[in-house]
Amino acid sequence: MDTLGRHLLVEYEGCDPDTLNDESAIRGLMRQAAKAAGATEVAVVFHRFSPQGVSGVVVVAESHLSIHTWPEHGYAAVDFYTCGDCEPERAHAVLLQGLAATSAEVMHVDRGARGRTCSMRLTVHEVEPEDRSRPEWTGIEKSTETDPATV
Amino acid sequence: MDTLGRHLLVEYEGCDPDTLNDESAIRGLMRQAAKAAGATEVAVVFHRFSPQGVSGVVVVAESHLSIHTWPEHGYAAVDFYTCGDCEPERAHAVLLQGLAATSAEVMHVDRGARGRTCSMRLTVHEVEPEDRSRPEWTGIEKSTETDPATV
Repeated sequence: MDTLGRHLLVEYEGCDPDTLNDESAIRGLMRQAAKAAGATEVAVVFHRFSPQGVSGVVVVAESHLSIHTWPEHGYAAVDFYTCGDCEPERAHAVLLQGLAATSAEVMHVDRGARGRTCSMRLTVHEVEPEDRSRPEWTGIEKSTETDPATV
Repeated sequence: MDTLGRHLLVEYEGCDPDTLNDESAIRGLMRQAAKAAGATEVAVVFHRFSPQGVSGVVVVAESHLSIHTWPEHGYAAVDFYTCGDCEPERAHAVLLQGLAATSAEVMHVDRGARGRTCSMRLTVHEVEPEDRSRPEWTGIEKSTETDPATV
């Protein structure tokens, strides 16, 4: 099986705290996200922490989707890592809407490019939509590719 | 609870194929890795694919550790994402040895730095040890920090 994969690291801000603290809702959103990405679910595990917060993972045939929530901060840290023909961006769209997030910071990392100079590569790092609440933020910009062999 | 976390994305090469295909061995290594990092295990899920390959996640109170293996390529893609006082580097050391990997490419991403310009930051991208088998590789170099607000 091909090792090439795409990994989106996403931080959601301004999310609905009740949703972030609802294990059933979070599980449902993550399973829906896996389906939207075109992934095949193989195992699911979720856990609600006391006094608050949910962690969980959907293991798919094409890698995994994970989430950790901090309801007290309206914040969630999520990973969408899929191989093959899946579209992790579609999973991201499900979470963005389902968590009612006001913004999302996203890193796109290509993985498993074995035999090239680097197996991994950060291709995009952006905030969507532009978050004007961050005083130093100058807009949606894409970072240059990182390549430790050339920096 | 503090949202600050450290996420190591690691690609292991030259691993022992039998270990990569042994669900029990992989589960054991990942649970050992979580313990070495100082993390508290809360849930474990692993799955062996047919004809080969293992995927699995250890959900910990401080986030998660995940692995996907391709025995046919001697390759594994692993994530160590921990918050608080954990040391994900110790988990990496367990896998590096346990998989008998000849090299590992590692990205260090800081996460959950809410309120700053960026919530995430790629701080290090390196191969350890230097992999001279890659023709274009010029040595162990560390990438500059990425910051989409300044590139």
